[in-house]
Amino acid sequence: MIRAGIVGGTGYTGVELLRILALHPEVEVAAVTSRADAGQRVDKTYPSLRGLCDAVFSPPEFDNLADCDVVFFATPNGTAMNMATDLLARGIKIIDLSADFRIKDIEEWEKWYGMSHASPDLVAEAVYGLPEINREAIKQARLIACPGCYPTAVQLGFLPLLEAGVIDAGHLIADAKSGVSGAGRKAEIPSLMSEAGESFKAYGVPGHRHLPEIKQGLQLATGQNIGLTFVPHLTPMIRGIHATLYARLTGEVDLQGLFEQRYQNEYFVDVLPAGSHADTRNVRGSNRCQIAVHQPQGGDTVVILSVIDNLVKGASGQAVQNMNLMFGLRENQGLETVALYP
Amino acid sequence: MIRAGIVGGTGYTGVELLRILALHPEVEVAAVTSRADAGQRVDKTYPSLRGLCDAVFSPPEFDNLADCDVVFFATPNGTAMNMATDLLARGIKIIDLSADFRIKDIEEWEKWYGMSHASPDLVAEAVYGLPEINREAIKQARLIACPGCYPTAVQLGFLPLLEAGVIDAGHLIADAKSGVSGAGRKAEIPSLMSEAGESFKAYGVPGHRHLPEIKQGLQLATGQNIGLTFVPHLTPMIRGIHATLYARLTGEVDLQGLFEQRYQNEYFVDVLPAGSHADTRNVRGSNRCQIAVHQPQGGDTVVILSVIDNLVKGASGQAVQNMNLMFGLRENQGLETVALYP
Amino acid sequence: MIRAGIVGGTGYTGVELLRILALHPEVEVAAVTSRADAGQRVDKTYPSLRGLCDAVFSPPEFDNLADCDVVFFATPNGTAMNMATDLLARGIKIIDLSADFRIKDIEEWEKWYGMSHASPDLVAEAVYGLPEINREAIKQARLIACPGCYPTAVQLGFLPLLEAGVIDAGHLIADAKSGVSGAGRKAEIPSLMSEAGESFKAYGVPGHRHLPEIKQGLQLATGQNIGLTFVPHLTPMIRGIHATLYARLTGEVDLQGLFEQRYQNEYFVDVLPAGSHADTRNVRGSNRCQIAVHQPQGGDTVVILSVIDNLVKGASGQAVQNMNLMFGLRENQGLETVALYP
Amino acid sequence: MIRAGIVGGTGYTGVELLRILALHPEVEVAAVTSRADAGQRVDKTYPSLRGLCDAVFSPPEFDNLADCDVVFFATPNGTAMNMATDLLARGIKIIDLSADFRIKDIEEWEKWYGMSHASPDLVAEAVYGLPEINREAIKQARLIACPGCYPTAVQLGFLPLLEAGVIDAGHLIADAKSGVSGAGRKAEIPSLMSEAGESFKAYGVPGHRHLPEIKQGLQLATGQNIGLTFVPHLTPMIRGIHATLYARLTGEVDLQGLFEQRYQNEYFVDVLPAGSHADTRNVRGSNRCQIAVHQPQGGDTVVILSVIDNLVKGASGQAVQNMNLMFGLRENQGLETVALYP
Repeated sequence: MIRAGIVGGTGYTGVELLRILALHPEVEVAAVTSRADAGQRVDKTYPSLRGLCDAVFSPPEFDNLADCDVVFFATPNGTAMNMATDLLARGIKIIDLSADFRIKDIEEWEKWYGMSHASPDLVAEAVYGLPEINREAIKQARLIACPGCYPTAVQLGFLPLLEAGVIDAGHLIADAKSGVSGAGRKAEIPSLMSEAGESFKAYGVPGHRHLPEIKQGLQLATGQNIGLTFVPHLTPMIRGIHATLYARLTGEVDLQGLFEQRYQNEYFVDVLPAGSHADTRNVRGSNRCQIAVHQPQGGDTVVILSVIDNLVKGASGQAVQNMNLMFGLRENQGLETVALYP
Repeated sequence: MIRAGIVGGTGYTGVELLRILALHPEVEVAAVTSRADAGQRVDKTYPSLRGLCDAVFSPPEFDNLADCDVVFFATPNGTAMNMATDLLARGIKIIDLSADFRIKDIEEWEKWYGMSHASPDLVAEAVYGLPEINREAIKQARLIACPGCYPTAVQLGFLPLLEAGVIDAGHLIADAKSGVSGAGRKAEIPSLMSEAGESFKAYGVPGHRHLPEIKQGLQLATGQNIGLTFVPHLTPMIRGIHATLYARLTGEVDLQGLFEQRYQNEYFVDVLPAGSHADTRNVRGSNRCQIAVHQPQGGDTVVILSVIDNLVKGASGQAVQNMNLMFGLRENQGLETVALYP
Repeated sequence: MIRAGIVGGTGYTGVELLRILALHPEVEVAAVTSRADAGQRVDKTYPSLRGLCDAVFSPPEFDNLADCDVVFFATPNGTAMNMATDLLARGIKIIDLSADFRIKDIEEWEKWYGMSHASPDLVAEAVYGLPEINREAIKQARLIACPGCYPTAVQLGFLPLLEAGVIDAGHLIADAKSGVSGAGRKAEIPSLMSEAGESFKAYGVPGHRHLPEIKQGLQLATGQNIGLTFVPHLTPMIRGIHATLYARLTGEVDLQGLFEQRYQNEYFVDVLPAGSHADTRNVRGSNRCQIAVHQPQGGDTVVILSVIDNLVKGASGQAVQNMNLMFGLRENQGLETVALYP
Repeated sequence: MIRAGIVGGTGYTGVELLRILALHPEVEVAAVTSRADAGQRVDKTYPSLRGLCDAVFSPPEFDNLADCDVVFFATPNGTAMNMATDLLARGIKIIDLSADFRIKDIEEWEKWYGMSHASPDLVAEAVYGLPEINREAIKQARLIACPGCYPTAVQLGFLPLLEAGVIDAGHLIADAKSGVSGAGRKAEIPSLMSEAGESFKAYGVPGHRHLPEIKQGLQLATGQNIGLTFVPHLTPMIRGIHATLYARLTGEVDLQGLFEQRYQNEYFVDVLPAGSHADTRNVRGSNRCQIAVHQPQGGDTVVILSVIDNLVKGASGQAVQNMNLMFGLRENQGLETVALYP
């Protein structure tokens, strides 16, 4: 059994890791830390886990993680970068769900995240954990930087087009919509149901932290210079991201065929039949990305619809997918859950 | 492998059976019928099942079910009673999620359901599929009448009190609240999101079909004459039932201990710690009933909070629990899913 | 023009007062205070008020309210009781939407609210602002204690029955459901959409602050000793309260006629036709209470369904109704708004 | 008093007209027709209107409308075009909320709407009822074609940019999100709360009927050839449209100043301060369009956020705004309602 530790178990990506790992046949959760709830049973905070998780939250200290095989960081930004060196030195693999190791350009990271990076040396080593791009590197990695939720949906949608070189890479548009769980389990007024319910708004239009991550990801994967307008929105539901992607075609191409071929061997990317519309409910609770491809009115603009569950393929499910690869397990082990519809 | 047939695969209890059975290690879905969608792939209607279900809807005819070991009826009332005799004659077990075999008094059934009963003879044989009461009978049964969603939550909440004889059985009150999926996948104006969303209302206050079912269930299980006021409400969410139960205590009793003892060996009934409040989100997608026990202000009124997912423990999950019992499988096989929180 | 001040303008009852008063033909908002947002334009916090409110939040100090005719307290409990004496001395009328002056028994108040009362002397003078009971006293009052949201819905539902002496007053049950705006505009985890959305739960079952208020209100209005089990629930919508009330009938009575007669002259209480079910959406944004009366299965239990918008008839609308009475205006002035359906 | 008739009073735009006109000081509702509910009191169908509307639904026949001054068509497409000639001949003004008179090119209309046009001659006369473009023509019109909901939000957002000639008109993108009330009060499975709730999807990506309307509107208003990719989405809320608009800038321009100047005299268009994000909740129930202007990262792509309430400024409120203009009333008469927040 793989011994897994979870740092930051009281947030939504933490409890989602617990939900997934509770039924993973090859993993036991050896430690769950929480600064706020240390000493309390996990299933007191999360009664959904009663009978499935005997753990007690421990303080987020090295000693509590020292005999893990892998540690997941489900923490706010700035935590993993301070603990990574010691854990790696002990031979413990790290899967970081926060943004600490996502951006290769340290200066760029510090600009967007507003702090100094504590382990710039590790950033170069970290592998960006999008298996559909980096599968082989992930298998060898000690340190995974799990992609953000928006970046997962957006990159999987643009990748086939950029790899095939059939769109103007300099003027991409990603209009993305997220459920409110993307804001995390933080007591903030804009996330109240009275504020976020029955309403729809964009946010971060001048600039959002996922912009540089998406651009870097697409650039590294395709070698092209990426120009991107990224507009995230908050939609009144709990789980799900719907990315609507726009690009200008530079030539003729069988779009449907292109996507089907690119993802034919990907268990977690499902290209819908031509003419379909993707719907977040069909991936709720599952680790799947569903993609639909359109060329409205036969014009020169391609429209890609890409949906994921932000907490699964956009966070904790993808983290476990990475873990499976790192430990030589079947990639979809523990991740076959069917979406919860309706 | 058990060969299962599902009659009425296009409703919510039908697709929920497909969701559960898709991962059940001992079952293969041999037939899924639908009058409306016959000839169409199941995963076209339900893209959440893509890659997990290769079935095509067949017409709801005997021949399409003839080589099943068990047939689930996820149909409107009035269908199962017309097909049951032939299937049973063939040696096929039946688990009926509709109300056809729930009420022992034929006249009473016909009054509430507004039609003549086609198989009154089978009603006597049918076993009421609430395993927490009828486990042994279920194991021997050919024909199961699965409880309604409200009756499951309400009976599990009242049972320990009635069995212990500590409340006035003649004046029970069940104030129950259901998510909108309880109304089924029917195109009706009151179920539109514009009507049911952001609103709360009672319905069926003069009389609801689950009233006689609950009364009969509690009477048969406890031998007491039951008087019940049952008020169902519609709450603006998709899944979940919350039953708030009121009864007058007739003597001193350790309520928390009573419940914990009654359900100590029940995998799917979870008595929450004293002082807790049950929350439907903690059982969403799972086959569990969570129960909290209160005696407000130390008065003589006991208040029980009982929550289930109406589509799982209130319908398809309970149906599979019954199947497991009928076929000698582990009772929770295929039903260990953790609730989807948040 | 009546010069109105609002203390605590950044909460939901505060902004609701601003919404109502913006179009009230006899009122100008002379001051809006907020400790947190002092110095900021009100319509920056609330863009819904752009063009309708030029006010700037001022600090909650006496001088900023000194030339008002009436001051509304839309504050947390414990604020009004500290400012009331000075304002009254200046001849300013007070309408307190918090709980400071609701409970006549000081000790009882201090037990439920967990603080010492700063103005116990004023409690006796304060008039409980439920116009359907206290209209004449309200007209003469200097100081109004506006009822809580639950107490408004529950009392209006029980009153006709108690006044007529046709129910067992010692064993009332109020099963009440509130939208999440009832929790206020406070950054707290349980009010996050990810927590409160798509879920239903009871809270405060052992004891809720509105219990003594309801009991006192019904006792004072009817002279009867009240026994009440009160169970509040949180329902996943923003606005609305639905109270389902249960009582044992002690004799024969024309229930529908009783209610219609009791409220025939009440503009804001609407008794629905026999057989109806009340729905919170039909009073959303309006100052109306709609009530439906049932006697299920002709038994001895009466069921009353009573709905209000918790922020209007349950708070700010009722406060303005009180103001209208205190200043000799038409009682429904500025309050004729039609509910926002759908 | 203006005598108004409403044809199709049982849909959402019909009841919204009733809500607005109930408080309009210059209008009395003389007739409300409904094929389905003829003979029934309006407030039985819509209890929110109890006490505010004494009308009884009449059948949709000419005689029932013959003594109106103005008739609103809140009907499915294809009704108004069959009744318009007779009403106009009688001197009755018509405000059509359906699409019958929106598209000038008859062939184009017939292609998108799938029927033959019954009054092609009237199409030329009909004035497109977007007051911010056609105010003077509206004042003189007998027949108004009220804009669709999406077209209102999208055109108001693009207009200033196109009029100023600062964007590439050939490659506009409108990514629009609508609440579910936009689908109307029709019993259809995709509009069920169990389907539309907690989910987000695009629809009509290959081609939506509002595409030709938007293109025509912008072309007629600005004389430019418009190329547009229009992608509508369904978002899990009841009211509101959020249009996110993208265009390539062709030169330097003070975007904020451009918008503020264009709409400085428009009561119902509110340009938010620089840096703002528009939120549908801030216009819920009001006739206002709020617009925010962005140029992310200082690039060459302008992003406009434009929000309306689809049933008010996107339908019935705009219809009343047109009526006010046609009858020489103050343009905002009866339309000053403040948005219902939260």
